[in-house]
Amino acid sequence: MTELIYEQPLNEKIRSYLRLEYLAQQVQHNLENDHQQRCFYPLFSLLELNERCDYRGDLLKEIDKQLFILAKWQLLPHVDASQVQNVVDGLSKAREQLQNPSRIGSALKQDRFLSALRQRFGMPGACCNFDLPQLHYWLAKPWDERKGEYLQWVEHFAPLLTPVSLLLSLIRSTAEYQDATAAGGFYQGTNAQPLSLIRVKIDSAQGCYPTISGHKTRYAIHFVQFADQRHSDKTIAFKLATCA
Amino acid sequence: MTELIYEQPLNEKIRSYLRLEYLAQQVQHNLENDHQQRCFYPLFSLLELNERCDYRGDLLKEIDKQLFILAKWQLLPHVDASQVQNVVDGLSKAREQLQNPSRIGSALKQDRFLSALRQRFGMPGACCNFDLPQLHYWLAKPWDERKGEYLQWVEHFAPLLTPVSLLLSLIRSTAEYQDATAAGGFYQGTNAQPLSLIRVKIDSAQGCYPTISGHKTRYAIHFVQFADQRHSDKTIAFKLATCA
Repeated sequence: MTELIYEQPLNEKIRSYLRLEYLAQQVQHNLENDHQQRCFYPLFSLLELNERCDYRGDLLKEIDKQLFILAKWQLLPHVDASQVQNVVDGLSKAREQLQNPSRIGSALKQDRFLSALRQRFGMPGACCNFDLPQLHYWLAKPWDERKGEYLQWVEHFAPLLTPVSLLLSLIRSTAEYQDATAAGGFYQGTNAQPLSLIRVKIDSAQGCYPTISGHKTRYAIHFVQFADQRHSDKTIAFKLATCA
Repeated sequence: MTELIYEQPLNEKIRSYLRLEYLAQQVQHNLENDHQQRCFYPLFSLLELNERCDYRGDLLKEIDKQLFILAKWQLLPHVDASQVQNVVDGLSKAREQLQNPSRIGSALKQDRFLSALRQRFGMPGACCNFDLPQLHYWLAKPWDERKGEYLQWVEHFAPLLTPVSLLLSLIRSTAEYQDATAAGGFYQGTNAQPLSLIRVKIDSAQGCYPTISGHKTRYAIHFVQFADQRHSDKTIAFKLATCA
């Protein structure tokens, strides 16, 4: 049995966070294993997203909002005060690191090696030996050396990726999974308060995956059979968490 | 000591072949190791290149040209006839498989799973769980199963990639490496007959890589220091093969 978790953001802010978290995970895989030139895809995606959008202002606002909520929590009697303090410390530290004035990733734009690679990475099959001899040279370096350089490049994004990870874990902690059933492969729900994230946990042995849509207080889940990529008309048992 | 080989095509035909060969190598790596969703990059690149360009006509012409040359070789006394016959057999078989009337890769365009993935693979960070839940499902399948499916997808391109590999090995076999020296990091050469491929072999311990340019009978090699990505002014010893 393999239980898979599918998530759907219900607002733009969480959508951005999930995208950044996904890239952070990819980067982490590339630090754990040598994926050769494939390691550049998430790095260049992070660069591009940070050029298009300055996440910092939004993130600082969100950190402040969460710190305010956590301060109120700390006054409640049944709360594990030391655990809350850990989260507060993590967010406060992340807040400091976000306040550096230079744009995240901008230093990497000066790197001649990365700039040359980046120009070609979007084109199909355009990273040949003759397109990018410098990449051919780089890939022949020992993995430890390449890993060290990769770490230096991706560390530029740590001030962004650390708070995103902390905030997402806070948001995920706002709801527990409940049993749910989709009759005819369909489920819909509403909530009095706006939601930020819908999470569906389902055993992959059921042979289907959910496509989730929604906005703020309403959401719908359609289950699709993987084999024929069509809507399932079966009754499907799954677990659902709706996070605030 | 790591000897690296850098190649530069001197015409469009060889340029295409090298690009396809590069993608074939990437596909091979993805069959040998589980690179997760990264395996789709060369597959989609092959699809895109085959949509843009029908390589078949050119390849058939080139195979016929080589078969004609090989037939003349077989008459020469000092030639290993059985080795030549092997190459002739390989090319003849590849020729047959290229004559299938349907466009290479076109069957894959009907695949709903691949089509959904392909739409998003060019965008930065656009393969999240919520963008492509079907990918999340697929990646949780056992590697053996995914490998089998990947093999089925990439086999569509075998009629194209097999002759490319045979032709490139023939072209590479037309020249042996000779010692050469680039004074002040620069080397240039001319040839009476048009060349198709320049090959430079150099020890990576020299800390530089060649950038090669040229057309038909003339070519130039500039060596660039990797550390600062600038032209080297040193005297550089390397090995050079100029293939017809």
